[in-house]
Amino acid sequence: MAVYTEVPDDALVTFLTGYDIGHVRSFKGIAEGVENSNYLLHADAGPFILTLYEKRVKESDLPFFIGLMEHLASRGVVCPQPVRAKNGEALGRLCGRAATIVTFLDGVWLRRPQAIHCGQVGEALARMHEAGTDFTQFQRPNALGIDGWPPLVAAAEARANEVAPGLKDEMTAELERLQAIWPSGLPGGVIHADLFPDNVFFLGDALTGLIDFYFACNDSFAYDLGICLNAWCFELDGQFNVSKGMAMIRGYERQRPLTAAEVEALPILARGSALRFMLTRLVDWLNVPPGAKVTPKNPLEYLTKMRFHQRVVSARDYGRLA
Amino acid sequence: MAVYTEVPDDALVTFLTGYDIGHVRSFKGIAEGVENSNYLLHADAGPFILTLYEKRVKESDLPFFIGLMEHLASRGVVCPQPVRAKNGEALGRLCGRAATIVTFLDGVWLRRPQAIHCGQVGEALARMHEAGTDFTQFQRPNALGIDGWPPLVAAAEARANEVAPGLKDEMTAELERLQAIWPSGLPGGVIHADLFPDNVFFLGDALTGLIDFYFACNDSFAYDLGICLNAWCFELDGQFNVSKGMAMIRGYERQRPLTAAEVEALPILARGSALRFMLTRLVDWLNVPPGAKVTPKNPLEYLTKMRFHQRVVSARDYGRLA
Repeated sequence: MAVYTEVPDDALVTFLTGYDIGHVRSFKGIAEGVENSNYLLHADAGPFILTLYEKRVKESDLPFFIGLMEHLASRGVVCPQPVRAKNGEALGRLCGRAATIVTFLDGVWLRRPQAIHCGQVGEALARMHEAGTDFTQFQRPNALGIDGWPPLVAAAEARANEVAPGLKDEMTAELERLQAIWPSGLPGGVIHADLFPDNVFFLGDALTGLIDFYFACNDSFAYDLGICLNAWCFELDGQFNVSKGMAMIRGYERQRPLTAAEVEALPILARGSALRFMLTRLVDWLNVPPGAKVTPKNPLEYLTKMRFHQRVVSARDYGRLA
Repeated sequence: MAVYTEVPDDALVTFLTGYDIGHVRSFKGIAEGVENSNYLLHADAGPFILTLYEKRVKESDLPFFIGLMEHLASRGVVCPQPVRAKNGEALGRLCGRAATIVTFLDGVWLRRPQAIHCGQVGEALARMHEAGTDFTQFQRPNALGIDGWPPLVAAAEARANEVAPGLKDEMTAELERLQAIWPSGLPGGVIHADLFPDNVFFLGDALTGLIDFYFACNDSFAYDLGICLNAWCFELDGQFNVSKGMAMIRGYERQRPLTAAEVEALPILARGSALRFMLTRLVDWLNVPPGAKVTPKNPLEYLTKMRFHQRVVSARDYGRLA
């Protein structure tokens, strides 16, 4: 839940004069999203989302994110559309922060997704991967890919054992192991990199759109699938649900069949993505600022997932039929 | 900012089958309101607010609040309208909590209200007071009126001096003084009791509606005006803005002239209302629960206001012309 920046009335009115969407009719902070301040803005022209980018988002990355959303939408992927101001720019400034207005998407994120939803998420992920292949205007390396993990381990290791006994050694060993076996040369392009349930909208059981592209980057497609297996296919008790995994992989392959190399690499990629989320959550957990408006997520959830993937023999364990 | 209760998908769908507003099209937690969980619910029939009442609201008070909103709207006061379910009830249950769906009001609350807005707030407050005079179906004594302050002093006194040196003695003396001089027999009826800027909506400079009646109760009208003088007419540096005070009182009296007794009592009532908000904020400040999702408000802001009112000689100091 997050509104970090309060927008004064006159600043909002002035900002909107730069756009062709009419006057403000309603303006409410949204208790979702942990990185930026998000407002639901009803203007004469309809509902929009106004985002103020807070310090965790690099301004130099914004052209990539905005260009990507425009590109994906032009390829039929339903996602928020940046609204261009009268001066032609999609990126503005408000309250000392970079800011955008994007279109509002109907739909609800699922608090308790089922296998039927996982199948659609897999398919939508593959569609996004394919739609992004000719997005070459900007590149964005994955700052939280395997090369980004050693600094996270370094930032957390001194106090990791406060969170779980032996965690320091376990995560260090896991990092070294993954560095040794991490695959390269897999098919890749633009990945979402954060396609958790709160970033996918449904109406009834039908997927209606994807949001929050602020971790999107260039990396291997199957790594993105690994992130989704972690985010969607485990139950609250830490058990992997193979029906959900099967549905997700089948959905993905309906749109984009995995190569043999991707199938073989999937357990390592899923394992690496579990380490990645464990590490970022751990660093956040150990560094909750005073007056934090966001409750940090539990890093141990991802430790459990990481250990599951360590025991996985092949993609068959995720439900993929050979 | 507050969403305390996550609503599972199936629970929401089931809940909505009891209403005639169609299916959910969007459902977002709102980062406003500190007492309850509020969601902006777009249904086929339009936008609504879904509120889940959390533990600080007594369920036995809900019929008063719901009946009051219906009553005021029937008298032309623009406020959220409870939507009745197919079974005729406005009060339902969701996720183990009492819950209501109310209509959505256009408008924006003002982060930086000016005198022109204070005048409209005064007038709207008086209209609400008049519209509520024949709401006699339910009664609700003011739990945070003068009889409710001694328990707050008792709850805070052991640690009050941690917040400001000498605060314990100062608030105890102030309570005793107010108990000695507190007026009785003033005109009264239903008051809002929490008409802060975030509870009043504007479009441009025009007031469009009042929200959040969850502190409403039966008490003297002029006490409600005292609350508004505190909430709207001080600047961030703690100075009372007499232009705003004049505008507010004039606005109020355009609709409902104050009696001589009310004019005389106003400084004491405003002073008491400053003590009331200082005390509730102080108790909250000293009792921030672990994992709190709401940053407590600064009690010292109201200590400054209380001291200002102590020095006030008459309502003329608030800008009322004799």
